[in-house]
Amino acid sequence: MNIVLLEPEDVQSELWSIRSKRQLQHLREHLDITVGQNLKVGIRNGARYITEIMSINEQEVCIRPITKEVVPAKLPVHLIVALPRPKVLRRLIMDSVTLGVERISLIHSYRVDKSYWQTPFLQQIDNYITLGLEQAGDTIVPEIQMYKRFKPFVEDVLPSLISKETPAYVAHPYAEQSMPFNIPHACSVIVGPEGGFIPYEVDLLTKNGCQAVSLGNRILRTETSISYILGRLFT
Amino acid sequence: MNIVLLEPEDVQSELWSIRSKRQLQHLREHLDITVGQNLKVGIRNGARYITEIMSINEQEVCIRPITKEVVPAKLPVHLIVALPRPKVLRRLIMDSVTLGVERISLIHSYRVDKSYWQTPFLQQIDNYITLGLEQAGDTIVPEIQMYKRFKPFVEDVLPSLISKETPAYVAHPYAEQSMPFNIPHACSVIVGPEGGFIPYEVDLLTKNGCQAVSLGNRILRTETSISYILGRLFT
Repeated sequence: MNIVLLEPEDVQSELWSIRSKRQLQHLREHLDITVGQNLKVGIRNGARYITEIMSINEQEVCIRPITKEVVPAKLPVHLIVALPRPKVLRRLIMDSVTLGVERISLIHSYRVDKSYWQTPFLQQIDNYITLGLEQAGDTIVPEIQMYKRFKPFVEDVLPSLISKETPAYVAHPYAEQSMPFNIPHACSVIVGPEGGFIPYEVDLLTKNGCQAVSLGNRILRTETSISYILGRLFT
Repeated sequence: MNIVLLEPEDVQSELWSIRSKRQLQHLREHLDITVGQNLKVGIRNGARYITEIMSINEQEVCIRPITKEVVPAKLPVHLIVALPRPKVLRRLIMDSVTLGVERISLIHSYRVDKSYWQTPFLQQIDNYITLGLEQAGDTIVPEIQMYKRFKPFVEDVLPSLISKETPAYVAHPYAEQSMPFNIPHACSVIVGPEGGFIPYEVDLLTKNGCQAVSLGNRILRTETSISYILGRLFT
């Protein structure tokens, strides 16, 4: 947690207060805070501040904003990723948000177990986003969408997102072209499930305007591939 | 698991056999194998093959090598990383190995809890390496070292690893220089603990020849930063 993320309703008066149990526990256990210290605080979908700690008790920490800070810019990327196992979902959303992805679409695919769409973890996405923003020092919530059917997404939604200026790259181990690096434009990045997209899916994606690109001859896990790709695309 | 990694002693006769419970379970549950099918198999620190499945029973799967395959090349990078929390260690080792890091050094640092050096997870590193190799389709075990004292490592070991041709980059959020990208040479990459290196440590590292470089104004988790950095350095 590199900033504490507050809700707009928490910052209505001159003094702001941190009341979330999770945040209070983190401040107590990891930051060992004292009155008079500075604390970095962001407001969801708003500004970021250096604040001063005015008082601390069991139920709340009161702070006062001092200086406005710059919120880090997002990466101009739309991440389209096959819904991962519930265990991986938290880390995937959190890391993608930390890395600054502007928009995330979770999609179905042949190798996505249908039960994954029923997991209670999907109800926790807002919390994972908060964790990712607090890690990055960001305040702006990315757009999240879910598409439970692969073909309608690829045929009806995806083409409208692709243009010459905003290409879509599908990470595919057997593609001949390599994933580009240091690109000067926005793009979509499409990452398959564990086990990869099936050939029919890769075909449908490329027929609908995507470029299949390889990450080299090592096969990475979904979560690992996302930070690897983003480190490479935007330098 | 994109290959099954066998030990040299498992491949002494004409027919090879897979007997590890973990590997058998994976083959059964995720790959739904049948006799006559092909299976990718590697030999630890040896070659990689396409094999044919000759027989399957509860205790073992027998295979016969057909074609030799190319083992993916390593990245010319020595990853030097502050020992992470035990929970993170598995993923960090596994991902670094999957990504192809040639050598990994785990080091102490002020913000590394001393108890981390006592964790039984450290005895599991060979298993994490196996998982990373099986994910990548690699067979070559990277070199792993541990340095339980920061200062002797930085002053006595690190300088011998650094030269004009093989620089060492310390990821540091407040550095002015950016992490380079697409470099044509080997290097060391140094990543701090959660909470970062303390200023004394960054000073000692730079005094001993390291370049402090920033990854931008987002603060990434250790595991996330490693794949992000490697995606960026070697394209």
